[in-house]
Amino acid sequence: MTDPAGPEATPTPPTSAAVARRAGVSRATVSYVLNGQAAGRVGVRTQARVRAAAEELGYVPHAAARSLRAGRGRIVLLAAPADAVPAFGPLFADFLAGFQTALHHLGYTGVLHGAPAASPLAAARDWAELRPAAVLALHGPPLDAAAVELLKRSGTAAVLTTGPQAPPGAHALLLDQREAGLRAGAHLLAAGRRRIGVVLPADPRLTAFAEPRLAGVRDAAAAHPGAEVRPLVLARTEESATRLAARWPALDLDAVFAYNDEYAMLLLRALQDAGHAVGAAPGRIAVVGADDLLLARLLRPRLTTVRAETAAPDRIAHLVDALIRDPSAPPAAHRLGTFHLVPRESA
Amino acid sequence: MTDPAGPEATPTPPTSAAVARRAGVSRATVSYVLNGQAAGRVGVRTQARVRAAAEELGYVPHAAARSLRAGRGRIVLLAAPADAVPAFGPLFADFLAGFQTALHHLGYTGVLHGAPAASPLAAARDWAELRPAAVLALHGPPLDAAAVELLKRSGTAAVLTTGPQAPPGAHALLLDQREAGLRAGAHLLAAGRRRIGVVLPADPRLTAFAEPRLAGVRDAAAAHPGAEVRPLVLARTEESATRLAARWPALDLDAVFAYNDEYAMLLLRALQDAGHAVGAAPGRIAVVGADDLLLARLLRPRLTTVRAETAAPDRIAHLVDALIRDPSAPPAAHRLGTFHLVPRESA
Repeated sequence: MTDPAGPEATPTPPTSAAVARRAGVSRATVSYVLNGQAAGRVGVRTQARVRAAAEELGYVPHAAARSLRAGRGRIVLLAAPADAVPAFGPLFADFLAGFQTALHHLGYTGVLHGAPAASPLAAARDWAELRPAAVLALHGPPLDAAAVELLKRSGTAAVLTTGPQAPPGAHALLLDQREAGLRAGAHLLAAGRRRIGVVLPADPRLTAFAEPRLAGVRDAAAAHPGAEVRPLVLARTEESATRLAARWPALDLDAVFAYNDEYAMLLLRALQDAGHAVGAAPGRIAVVGADDLLLARLLRPRLTTVRAETAAPDRIAHLVDALIRDPSAPPAAHRLGTFHLVPRESA
Repeated sequence: MTDPAGPEATPTPPTSAAVARRAGVSRATVSYVLNGQAAGRVGVRTQARVRAAAEELGYVPHAAARSLRAGRGRIVLLAAPADAVPAFGPLFADFLAGFQTALHHLGYTGVLHGAPAASPLAAARDWAELRPAAVLALHGPPLDAAAVELLKRSGTAAVLTTGPQAPPGAHALLLDQREAGLRAGAHLLAAGRRRIGVVLPADPRLTAFAEPRLAGVRDAAAAHPGAEVRPLVLARTEESATRLAARWPALDLDAVFAYNDEYAMLLLRALQDAGHAVGAAPGRIAVVGADDLLLARLLRPRLTTVRAETAAPDRIAHLVDALIRDPSAPPAAHRLGTFHLVPRESA
């Protein structure tokens, strides 16, 4: 950081010593009262006096100082860049919001940390500076063993990653993307489709999610002799969708699983504009999206989609709390949710 | 927070003293090197030795300890719940991501803090526990003077709010929502529309944005004798849009500004399903959205929209840095961007 302004420009924050003086008690008493440890130690009237003095002086306990004393902070760091929040879809944002609320009720502060990092180790170093009690690596470069080790050594009690491959020492919060592909593929195959395109977003940030979805469709197709699965790369633009639709006759596919509803909507519209019929009926191109976006119901035919049902945010917050309180718990995979198909008109 | 596990469960983080011992230097030297203040004080070889020792021990400087010493942290706290990120639209998410990157390059850590709070003062108290160098109140209950005062007293150098009414002591980052309504209204009035509906989302979190947009349309209409502006409440559901479309004949409106593209898409589809023609041609219902969503171009007619051009995230990051370094700078309003109309087919 560039040089801060001189100290004369900074107002002096009130200290717990000032609160203690004003309330006529010791600093330890102030600490007990303001950190919720007064029961059985400090009388009710004294507690009220301490709170009033803190209020009058505008004193707020310093989370950082508390974490220095306790060796552990109250921060639960959720690593994901801000633009990943809408990229993951509204269900993810709702989950995050509910999760932050649930953490708050357990006494933690869930912050989204989205700074870019050159490597997993560089990311871990940035996160460690905040001395979080737990880190959830939701998005970004996959963590490795050295990054987990650095976090643990600097006092992070619990490290969790999403995705099936957690590095040593980290817990996995598992939302099996493969299952999304499996559900979409099974639906299309049951309807008699045998030449299935699978859209892979050109955005490299989404590869870690798109590849297992493709693998899921392949797994579903393995049970159907003669079924063929073909990856199709699509950028999130109308132009890219128009180009893919123009190639459709040469591709000779009768169905497509389009990664998510946004890509599905782009392709569905481009296929229609190129004169192709989209729909569940035989002879039409079947299109399946994912995420169950509200807006995907506004196109015609209405989009068939795969939707994730995630565990209640409270349950995940309690899990994180338990892992923080038992840092020696052996790393395990914890299921975050499952996928199911929502049939509408497009497939 | 519930009781942490006993100390035996916590690995002991390496200290700067351990780094100093290993490198054979003083703790002050370690501090100079790892906090970027070594130039002219510590030789290049010694710097390399300190860095190597820190690397070997897995030592990371503690941002909190540094802020305790300096009286000020490196955290720039962006207050907005996670589900507000997509609610504000993809432009906002892109801005946030760019802003976090720009802050990172200036040596700050931009974290999104989304915990719920019962009041502005309660929110400020939660934020203050992280001792942020700056707070940007992007969303949530509007800050008041007491909340700003509490933040300042606990060492936050700069408090910024979005929206035109900043409380005393806070800077305003101004994206004038009234202008969005003004642009939409002017476009519709220039096309000869005189009975204009304005959609207000039923979601109370959006009222602070919707009301000034309505006021902007009213301002535009004031110059046209006989022009009429009518607020219409709409929930973000297909059912609510269907109900509003069913009332349309009684409303007798020839145009609508629909808050944003999502509400516009819902209403456009519902109007079409109810047998109304939507479009720019006379006799059709003109529909204008806002945000310029990619998906809004997939409906037919393509949606006419109002789009915000925001200042480069770098510029705002530099502004925040300047305000942190000069906490006595008199509060002012800083323009975040402007709105312009993107004409397509629906109006």
